[in-house]
Amino acid sequence: MFKQITIIGFGLIGSSLARAIKRHKLADRIVCADQSREVCEKVKSLGLADEIFTDLAKSVKDSDLVVLCVPVGAMQSVAEKIAPALSAGAIVTDVGSVKTSVMKTLQLKIPAKVHIVGGHPIAGTEHSGPEAGFAELFIGRWCILTPMQHTELRVVEKLTKLWEACGSNIEIMDPEHHDLVLGITSHLPHLIAYTIVGTATDMEEDLKGEVIKFSASGFRDFTRIASSDPVMWRDVFLNNKEAVLEILQRFTEDLTAMQKAIRKGDGDYLYQTFKETRDIRKAIIEAGQATYAYPTKSQEAVVPEVVPPAASDPARQR
Amino acid sequence: MFKQITIIGFGLIGSSLARAIKRHKLADRIVCADQSREVCEKVKSLGLADEIFTDLAKSVKDSDLVVLCVPVGAMQSVAEKIAPALSAGAIVTDVGSVKTSVMKTLQLKIPAKVHIVGGHPIAGTEHSGPEAGFAELFIGRWCILTPMQHTELRVVEKLTKLWEACGSNIEIMDPEHHDLVLGITSHLPHLIAYTIVGTATDMEEDLKGEVIKFSASGFRDFTRIASSDPVMWRDVFLNNKEAVLEILQRFTEDLTAMQKAIRKGDGDYLYQTFKETRDIRKAIIEAGQATYAYPTKSQEAVVPEVVPPAASDPARQR
Repeated sequence: MFKQITIIGFGLIGSSLARAIKRHKLADRIVCADQSREVCEKVKSLGLADEIFTDLAKSVKDSDLVVLCVPVGAMQSVAEKIAPALSAGAIVTDVGSVKTSVMKTLQLKIPAKVHIVGGHPIAGTEHSGPEAGFAELFIGRWCILTPMQHTELRVVEKLTKLWEACGSNIEIMDPEHHDLVLGITSHLPHLIAYTIVGTATDMEEDLKGEVIKFSASGFRDFTRIASSDPVMWRDVFLNNKEAVLEILQRFTEDLTAMQKAIRKGDGDYLYQTFKETRDIRKAIIEAGQATYAYPTKSQEAVVPEVVPPAASDPARQR
Repeated sequence: MFKQITIIGFGLIGSSLARAIKRHKLADRIVCADQSREVCEKVKSLGLADEIFTDLAKSVKDSDLVVLCVPVGAMQSVAEKIAPALSAGAIVTDVGSVKTSVMKTLQLKIPAKVHIVGGHPIAGTEHSGPEAGFAELFIGRWCILTPMQHTELRVVEKLTKLWEACGSNIEIMDPEHHDLVLGITSHLPHLIAYTIVGTATDMEEDLKGEVIKFSASGFRDFTRIASSDPVMWRDVFLNNKEAVLEILQRFTEDLTAMQKAIRKGDGDYLYQTFKETRDIRKAIIEAGQATYAYPTKSQEAVVPEVVPPAASDPARQR
């Protein structure tokens, strides 16, 4: 499919993509580039690439596809380094969780002879680093592509085929719309999870042991996503500021209404709000997005979740 | 262990307890009581009880243990109904998620010749109703007991043995301390999850489809706990008002600090906060509370989660 693919940044996503490309023979050669010597050593021992560079410019020479798998905040410096060495007609894409700011950066730094298509595979685990990756990560998961207005259709199709071969379903979007949708589905949930885990951590030492002990009662669900890579998430919030702040504003209003209902003892409001949220869970289960489709490194569920039994009649005693 | 145990309210917890008592032969007879005729029919067809009543007073006659498995808000009316029919020396316990208000109610309504010990098994799934129960629900899970100051030790020990036989580990606590610990580990997480799912549901129809489609990116983790029983949770918030409002206040302060850091572009604050939350996740995994120990009705993970690989070096590109 490609002669030579360079993957820059070999964390969870980069190393998973390399594994999938290798398994499905999507390129004649895979080149890995990472500025960390330690990461390069690991990639070498894992046998994931045909050639490994710490010098980013050298790594993109003669590649027909370059995939930037670095945190959003590192995109600009990486783009500056590789720009002079890119071949005419090559495609540059990325896997960043924010698209508007990344597209602007790439458009500014990457020469016009090179095609730019933004990308974002909606896949991941709470683990990071090259050992955390696995070839099945993208199977059954969405990958959002954000081409520029003037991007040729054949370029988008080529990238579509690559991700489809890795098992993904493709969705094409405007960068701005991507950032709004992911703001509510991903960025806000992570921010809230980080905050609540922080609030618990701040409670006095004595209580902390009990928080850990009794975490099965709800809290632990938040700690999983709050253990995601801190650099990646810092960059997400710095680069999707407007959308996140707007959605956070809506959330805060809703939380204030909840707080008021508790203070006033408004059981009807609480019951109605809690009841409505069940429907959206059902829709997610029906859409097949409720569980990991394939085992992850952390050995999570492989069996698709069953539809829960019909909601019990609220009027009766349980 | 007991001659006759009456379980009032046959939802997820009540029916799971009946199954565990039956399997481990912890009582000569199991009596089920539920004011819903529909639930009683189901219990009959599932063969979970030796006798089934819709009349609560009749169900407690001659029982040496009565377990109240109804929502917290129903405790008072149930206590009033059974009070005249309870035998001298019987034990009344419950499984409610709030303890201070329940203990006060029971103390007021249950005659002095009957022993009262509050109970709260920290176990559950997002499903409800008698079919949702299973005997393994309590294995490896904590059960908190809140005896009254004058409760005889042998009564607490008898109840301890029952829950231990069901697979639980026992912790004794003051009702007030229970409500604070569960406020942060359980009540606040559920409130936040309900709120964020509500915020997403309120977004325009067009976006809602995309929220469901791309929910794997964080949002779906919240929808699972936000699909828990709405009556149970309404009652929790109405009955643990003070602790929940106090903890919510701390959370709101922390969220405001996060919002400010995003607005100001304070990457250092975000990075430090996100980094610290990883430690608490690690502690939860080490305490063996990160996953369900046994399969649930929804076929969730049975394999204990492995410790994630060491956090990647934040300074390097991934």
